[in-house]
Amino acid sequence: MNKTENKIYIVGMGPGAEDMMTGQAIKALEVSDIIIGYTVYIQLLGEKFQNKELLSTPMRKEKERCKLCFEKAQAGKTVAMVCSGDAGIYGLASLMYEIGTDYPDVALEVIPGITAANSGAAVLGAPLNHDFCTISLSDLLTPWETIEKRLLAAAEGDFVIALYNPSSHKRKDYLARACEILLRVLEPERPCGYVENIGRDETKATVCRLDELKDAQVNMFTTVFIGDRGTEIIDGKLVTKRGYQIER
Amino acid sequence: MNKTENKIYIVGMGPGAEDMMTGQAIKALEVSDIIIGYTVYIQLLGEKFQNKELLSTPMRKEKERCKLCFEKAQAGKTVAMVCSGDAGIYGLASLMYEIGTDYPDVALEVIPGITAANSGAAVLGAPLNHDFCTISLSDLLTPWETIEKRLLAAAEGDFVIALYNPSSHKRKDYLARACEILLRVLEPERPCGYVENIGRDETKATVCRLDELKDAQVNMFTTVFIGDRGTEIIDGKLVTKRGYQIER
Ligand SMILES: C[S@@+](CC[C@H](N)C(=O)[O-])C[C@H]1O[C@@H](n2cnc3c(N)ncnc32)[C@H](O)[C@@H]1O
Ligand SMILES: C[S@@+](CC[C@H](N)C(=O)[O-])C[C@H]1O[C@@H](n2cnc3c(N)ncnc32)[C@H](O)[C@@H]1O
Repeated sequence: MNKTENKIYIVGMGPGAEDMMTGQAIKALEVSDIIIGYTVYIQLLGEKFQNKELLSTPMRKEKERCKLCFEKAQAGKTVAMVCSGDAGIYGLASLMYEIGTDYPDVALEVIPGITAANSGAAVLGAPLNHDFCTISLSDLLTPWETIEKRLLAAAEGDFVIALYNPSSHKRKDYLARACEILLRVLEPERPCGYVENIGRDETKATVCRLDELKDAQVNMFTTVFIGDRGTEIIDGKLVTKRGYQIER
Repeated sequence: MNKTENKIYIVGMGPGAEDMMTGQAIKALEVSDIIIGYTVYIQLLGEKFQNKELLSTPMRKEKERCKLCFEKAQAGKTVAMVCSGDAGIYGLASLMYEIGTDYPDVALEVIPGITAANSGAAVLGAPLNHDFCTISLSDLLTPWETIEKRLLAAAEGDFVIALYNPSSHKRKDYLARACEILLRVLEPERPCGYVENIGRDETKATVCRLDELKDAQVNMFTTVFIGDRGTEIIDGKLVTKRGYQIER
């Protein structure tokens, strides 16, 4: 990886801890002149990058953040835009490509990162070890009816489900609403789990049943897992069997 | 991370290139006495680890490989079992937890890695940037009817779909069969893509329509992506919009 003019690396930083970043992601930050991101992620960056120009924009100002990257890159700089987890999973990668059509002389490259579904699964055991889907419960950009439809389709298709954005200040009851919908199709005993603050201080993992998940205390740093019909709790870990015919 | 007796790290190595491993994964290999894996992945490991005891078992001998890990760990060693991508995504993590009930004195820890869905998405652009699911087309452990049901559920739920194991020697027509099923619900123009040899030499990425995907040449090192109704091809990249209400 080289320092290249008019280039933006869209970098997934993983869940938090620096040792959960890939070598490639660290390299991309190293070759960049400017690192741009949401204030919190810029603060998470270690001492190591304090010699870079660090720019942050607050939450919600996402289009502004993207445009700032393009303007700096167009002026000849190498820019790293940082996102938590993987920038292509509920992150800004696609918005960057959309806005990029206005800046044809700027090149984009996505550097993948460990997304919360994968890092959270590792903490819980192996819940995603068969076909799974991810659903965001945020209805800021997606109508709630679409979310509801996807929850039902996922349950009917017997997928393991990883829920992102299970709660926010304005949507405290969204996880409970999602559980009610899933309970139309799935049994109340279905093994589930959730993890708060993956890869950060005070990581908290809980394993429970679907009817208990309904009342779980989750926040915007929680990722939630609902098992498929092959999911079991083994020694406190949430484990989804790889197939239906495994004998020991 | 410390060297610990009777411990197995289940390590996701990412798609291939060493700089796509996390710092944590490299550390886990460094503190281990023995590294165990499928022959090909053991060979991928750089010079760096040639001072470790390296053990490999051929493909298909997966239960034997897991048991070998436990026996070495029970004898007091620190063991790293390596898997490509993420060990918890169509990997051996769950089988390790299942077999682990016979070895109560051995501790397990999963170290997440970049899975092919994420690394492949980064090559193609940002296809997974909204709710998505992963489906394996391998019917070794899952009946084909279940796979078919999940393909339909995923299409009806308007998920982006990442297909793992799209082909093998014995199942050359499985991707074509999957496309036929998806075409019952999705339009032939639906944007799709596939990536071969992610993170390795000769990475090959292709963007196409669903009706063209049917005839695509894929192999066991290909991951395939089918867009949702918000997926577009922008400057040759496969990009899924984050929501339905984004205005520029
Ligand atoms: C806007 S999404 C960003 C996802 C991110 N791009 C990724 O790939 O992980 C925010 C949601 O991701 C999940 N998440 C992100 N980081 C997390 C962490 N460190 N611990 C637990 N959940 C996390 C939570 O569900 C949170 O509500
Ligand atoms: C048994 S699965 C293992 C998946 C792995 N644990 C992961 O998380 O990526 C094998 C399938 O993963 C995908 N895959 C794994 N490594 C790949 C690579 N380097 N390039 C493209 N696809 C890959 C392909 O679909 C392949 O058929």
